[in-house]
Amino acid sequence: MTASRRIVVVGGVAGGMSAAARARRLDEHADIVVLEQGDFVSFANCGLPYHLSGEIDRRDSLLLHTPATLASTLNLDVRTGHRVTAIDRDAREVTVQTAERTYRLPYDALLLAPGATAVRPPVEGLDHPAVHALRVVPDVDALRATVDGLLASRDDGDRAAEPPTAVVVGAGFIGLEAVEALAARGLQVHLVELADHVLPPLDAELAPLLAEELASHGVRLHLGAGARKIRPAAEAADYGEETVRPAGPVVVTLSDGDEVTADLVVVNVGVRPASALAREAGLDLGPSGAIRVDGDQRTSDPHIWAVGDAVEVVQAVTGATGPVPLAGPANRQGRRAADSICGRRTTPQAPVLGTAIVRVFGLTAAVTGANQATLRRAGIDHEVVHVHPGHHAGYYPGAEQIHIVASFAPDGSLLGAQAVGRAGVDKRIDVLATALRAGMGADDLAELELAYSPPFGSAKDPVNMLGFVAQNVLDRTMPQWQAWELDEVREGTLVLDVRSRGEFAAGHLDGALNIPHTELRDRLDEVRDAAGGRPVSVHCASGVRSYLATRILRGEGVDARNLSGGWLTLTAVHPELLEDVAVRA
Amino acid sequence: MTASRRIVVVGGVAGGMSAAARARRLDEHADIVVLEQGDFVSFANCGLPYHLSGEIDRRDSLLLHTPATLASTLNLDVRTGHRVTAIDRDAREVTVQTAERTYRLPYDALLLAPGATAVRPPVEGLDHPAVHALRVVPDVDALRATVDGLLASRDDGDRAAEPPTAVVVGAGFIGLEAVEALAARGLQVHLVELADHVLPPLDAELAPLLAEELASHGVRLHLGAGARKIRPAAEAADYGEETVRPAGPVVVTLSDGDEVTADLVVVNVGVRPASALAREAGLDLGPSGAIRVDGDQRTSDPHIWAVGDAVEVVQAVTGATGPVPLAGPANRQGRRAADSICGRRTTPQAPVLGTAIVRVFGLTAAVTGANQATLRRAGIDHEVVHVHPGHHAGYYPGAEQIHIVASFAPDGSLLGAQAVGRAGVDKRIDVLATALRAGMGADDLAELELAYSPPFGSAKDPVNMLGFVAQNVLDRTMPQWQAWELDEVREGTLVLDVRSRGEFAAGHLDGALNIPHTELRDRLDEVRDAAGGRPVSVHCASGVRSYLATRILRGEGVDARNLSGGWLTLTAVHPELLEDVAVRA
Ligand SMILES: Cc1cc2nc3c(=O)[nH]c(=O)nc-3n(C[C@H](O)[C@H](O)[C@H](O)COP(=O)(O)OP(=O)(O)OC[C@H]3O[C@@H](n4cnc5c(N)ncnc54)[C@H](O)[C@@H]3O)c2cc1C
Ligand SMILES: Cc1cc2nc3c(=O)[nH]c(=O)nc-3n(C[C@H](O)[C@H](O)[C@H](O)COP(=O)(O)OP(=O)(O)OC[C@H]3O[C@@H](n4cnc5c(N)ncnc54)[C@H](O)[C@@H]3O)c2cc1C
Ligand SMILES: CC(C)(COP(=O)(O)OP(=O)(O)OC[C@H]1O[C@@H](n2cnc3c(N)ncnc32)[C@H](O)[C@@H]1OP(=O)(O)O)[C@@H](O)C(=O)NCCC(=O)NCCS
Ligand SMILES: CC(C)(COP(=O)(O)OP(=O)(O)OC[C@H]1O[C@@H](n2cnc3c(N)ncnc32)[C@H](O)[C@@H]1OP(=O)(O)O)[C@@H](O)C(=O)NCCC(=O)NCCS
Repeated sequence: MTASRRIVVVGGVAGGMSAAARARRLDEHADIVVLEQGDFVSFANCGLPYHLSGEIDRRDSLLLHTPATLASTLNLDVRTGHRVTAIDRDAREVTVQTAERTYRLPYDALLLAPGATAVRPPVEGLDHPAVHALRVVPDVDALRATVDGLLASRDDGDRAAEPPTAVVVGAGFIGLEAVEALAARGLQVHLVELADHVLPPLDAELAPLLAEELASHGVRLHLGAGARKIRPAAEAADYGEETVRPAGPVVVTLSDGDEVTADLVVVNVGVRPASALAREAGLDLGPSGAIRVDGDQRTSDPHIWAVGDAVEVVQAVTGATGPVPLAGPANRQGRRAADSICGRRTTPQAPVLGTAIVRVFGLTAAVTGANQATLRRAGIDHEVVHVHPGHHAGYYPGAEQIHIVASFAPDGSLLGAQAVGRAGVDKRIDVLATALRAGMGADDLAELELAYSPPFGSAKDPVNMLGFVAQNVLDRTMPQWQAWELDEVREGTLVLDVRSRGEFAAGHLDGALNIPHTELRDRLDEVRDAAGGRPVSVHCASGVRSYLATRILRGEGVDARNLSGGWLTLTAVHPELLEDVAVRA
Repeated sequence: MTASRRIVVVGGVAGGMSAAARARRLDEHADIVVLEQGDFVSFANCGLPYHLSGEIDRRDSLLLHTPATLASTLNLDVRTGHRVTAIDRDAREVTVQTAERTYRLPYDALLLAPGATAVRPPVEGLDHPAVHALRVVPDVDALRATVDGLLASRDDGDRAAEPPTAVVVGAGFIGLEAVEALAARGLQVHLVELADHVLPPLDAELAPLLAEELASHGVRLHLGAGARKIRPAAEAADYGEETVRPAGPVVVTLSDGDEVTADLVVVNVGVRPASALAREAGLDLGPSGAIRVDGDQRTSDPHIWAVGDAVEVVQAVTGATGPVPLAGPANRQGRRAADSICGRRTTPQAPVLGTAIVRVFGLTAAVTGANQATLRRAGIDHEVVHVHPGHHAGYYPGAEQIHIVASFAPDGSLLGAQAVGRAGVDKRIDVLATALRAGMGADDLAELELAYSPPFGSAKDPVNMLGFVAQNVLDRTMPQWQAWELDEVREGTLVLDVRSRGEFAAGHLDGALNIPHTELRDRLDEVRDAAGGRPVSVHCASGVRSYLATRILRGEGVDARNLSGGWLTLTAVHPELLEDVAVRA
């Protein structure tokens, strides 16, 4: 038998360990060494927020494997506390540093899965011990200890005292999970986000739903504001004498001038590819600084592969390249790299959709494909469709509205979709992600055959409904106007509100004409008179009744357009409309 | 303006009313008449079982529309109690019969949406008033009245008395819903099914899970047995004197000789297309008796369209034709027919997948595409894969196993999939239905990018996992053996059980060698000795550990195969293995 090859893996978590495991299954005789700088391998990064909240009670649950179990099941040589500091590509050796020593390790194939590093925002005082990250196991250990300490000292003292306070900087996926976890532990949480809405990848129409959910759980939002400075709170602040509060309190100064006193701060403003090692070894990087790989995960060096948060992928829809730091792609890239290293048939990496999901208290938000901002930036022509169907048949108790936004190319192709709701969101985004991968369009969505019985869906599933509406928009059966065109619409058209009188009374647009849709056929003259030759901009609550009205009007030769997503979407984009209600009603 | 055309619709529920509604939206001026023989239109047939159970409390919730609301919103002329008895194709007129009169109604376009009629099984005494159907609103009214009466008379009398008893004949989707509903009301339910497992469209490996769930909720199963005869119970049966029980009790005699005394019987053994009207008018029917239509829902008469349970569709995968009585297709066919009638661009009906789902107490069962029996009958070559992944990350509390069976063509194409479990089943089947529609295969499933965070899924989603396993089976990385090959396997191979000693002790195959997978690398000689040149048939609980073992053995040159789905699937196919446990352990 020929000498077995040595596969060296740098980074022993999602991408790296998936590759090592698959490589072993493909090659029983390879010498597979996994080098991990930290103390833990194969841990569930994605579970860290749920250990912070206490939902995942035992830390051990997060450790899917240990070096010992990886040795006994997969015969892997896993070395924790071993950091790779250099790659000698000519010699095919890596330099490894441990607490005690430095050594060189030859490889036949090298796989880089070093992940990403947290972006350090330009905030003064970030090194204060009250400031935490949430990336690795020791981070969550420290956070739990801090929270436990804060709660314990409060329990010892005045039970009526204010709860401990946390500031979370960054309202991305992980930031939101941190907020939920800290609030679940009973902390008063402030959430600071530079963008003008929470979860920046989400389209602006959907984000207010999350903001409302956060607020209703007591979270204080600071949107459009960055953290500027973190300094120890003055001793003057009276937090009792006998307990030494762990690492706090601090005062966080925001860019809008606000100051928040907090017992702890969690910073999560994104990651950047951990590509220093690759760069120093002269491997090609993309403009984003991520490692460039081919469809087989191979870098510019034929003996080196790379996967996960550190690599560049082609993004679906736009074709742009850059990193997409998600666990699913990292795991599958690891598997693909192992296939390639072991000389197996591979299926090249498909353009990445960036499908992602987050639970925020009772709500779920999920995205797949390109969002509107991305499409605008890329100059890709698209129509945006908003629907708010129930997650299952309305006549069966418990139906929850799903708010779906999707973009379609003029030829009908789906470009991206997002959804927020209390139930059934994950299912619809997964179906849409599958459709997107398959290159489906409005016609295909309209015809998908999804499982229906009353507890699970509708005869016309929300995804079908999205397809119907998109078809109508694209073939101009239903021309539409968008919430963000409100100013032009108010200036140049008649606004016709076809909701009931009661709904109208509870809040409406100034100057709108109210004719309930069931009366429209008898009151066409009123519409024509009020319009005076201007186009008619119809709306109702969700878009369904106003669609009927739009069709009636167009059937009568009136130039009518329907508001996409109705009052629900309009007030999300223009929250000031809801504030005015008291005055107007 | 030219005279408006008249569109006449026969049948005012799923397909018919969807067509009428869409036609109105496309043509404000058409004269649209909907003729419905029953007293109700636009009712939620699919919700009937949930009104029986009481979950849908108000019957009105089932009536999505009334003739009045359809007039006010859509200007439809809806006529209940109007039965169409004949079509005069030459004159383009239908004959309509009401309680009072008969009239002829001319049409420009005629749409047939008469649905299906219940199959009457050859059971003596089916006309006894204790025997019920569950198809239309009056059926559920009668059933509720009967159940209410039975429960009330019991409450009046001896509270310790046995609960009322129901026999449900037919364990299809609706039969199972009826069972669940009656059990929820507190009845003792017997379920009689001619096939050898409940939910006959389900593959035999999955059905035992449903049977177990039914039994654990007190349902008595009579499988492989048909109802033969229903006769009034002898007066001798002592049910008290003062209450007259509504329409019962009866004695149901089964084909296996069993007799069950029951207060009510619900018969649901399938439907056949209601195509008599079409046949009498000379329209083309398929061999199944369903109305033949083209991709636009047009019948052999260019002025007549047909949709829903009454029509023939092309079934995906096999290409066979026949009716597929489901609400989703009916609704969408109605929409397509309206498009065609109104001269719009249509998207032709795609081959139908037959995606369907049912809740059975705490379990959900769902199917899409061809099942194994269908593939075998059609002579389509396929590999069957069984997996049992968690519905979300295992480290996050509450993960429930999903049992998935899927068939793949030798080229990797997905042919059909089925799943049973307590959570997440609907999502996976919808993703697989979308994949099937897109013509995806194992490679595509492996690479799908589905939404993952711990409460919703796994970095390697169950659907990805299915793809991985299928890839390994198809490229023979992991040759497998199937539970139904047990006899051959026991005769010609060594059975190697790689579970732990504890699992082995709790039940195993006679003659199996037990080597936990973590010890296998050190005990290869034992395997070689025991095998004595025979192939080695490996198994564990679910297939994962035995896959690792299979790869170790094959890496060492041993001809090893893995049991698809492991002990979980094996014991579902061979329940006698579990019965023997006490003896053997
Ligand atoms: C709190 C949190 C929650 C998340 N939630 C989700 C989620 O819900 N869904 C989702 O899809 N994704 C989530 N992610 C992202 C996901 O965990 C990552 O995308 C994924 O782990 C990336 O895999 P990777 O193998 O590239 O890197 P990692 O899994 O981060 O592993 C990289 C490893 O390499 C080690 N390493 C780096 N450099 C060296 C070196 N020179 N020598 C030795 N070792 C080195 C690091 O110590 C690290 O352990 C979350 C991440 C975090 C932190
Ligand atoms: C209890 C029950 C539960 C169900 N659950 C589900 C489910 O969970 N999921 C699912 O997908 N499907 C389900 N179905 C099936 C679904 O309801 C049907 O597939 C669907 O309704 C078929 O639509 P259709 O328009 O063809 O027929 P129907 O909706 O049955 O409508 C046909 C109508 O035509 C009328 N009619 C017939 N002949 C004439 C005539 N000559 N003149 C005038 N009127 C006439 C009938 O009275 C009837 O009202 C269920 C069905 C039932 C009965
Ligand atoms: C756990 C870890 C070591 C990966 O291990 P893995 O062995 O590749 O993955 P799994 O344990 O899920 O097993 C998957 C394998 O089992 C196989 N399998 C699954 N079910 C099977 C069944 N019923 N029968 C046969 N094989 C089966 C799959 O085909 C796959 O093998 P393949 O890749 O060779 O095709 C690695 O992913 C890891 O370290 N993860 C933790 C970190 C992480 O992922 N973080 C981000 C998310 S929190
Ligand atoms: C209810 C029934 C009358 C159908 O009515 P329908 O008007 O076609 O269907 P819906 O009320 O769901 O509305 C769908 C329409 O609203 C449109 N729509 C949905 N959301 C919209 C939004 N936010 N903005 C604009 N339009 C929207 C859709 O595009 C679709 O119109 P289209 O077909 O012209 O494209 C008919 O299906 C029926 O009688 N159903 C009961 C029986 C039944 O289905 N039984 C079996 C299942 S229980």
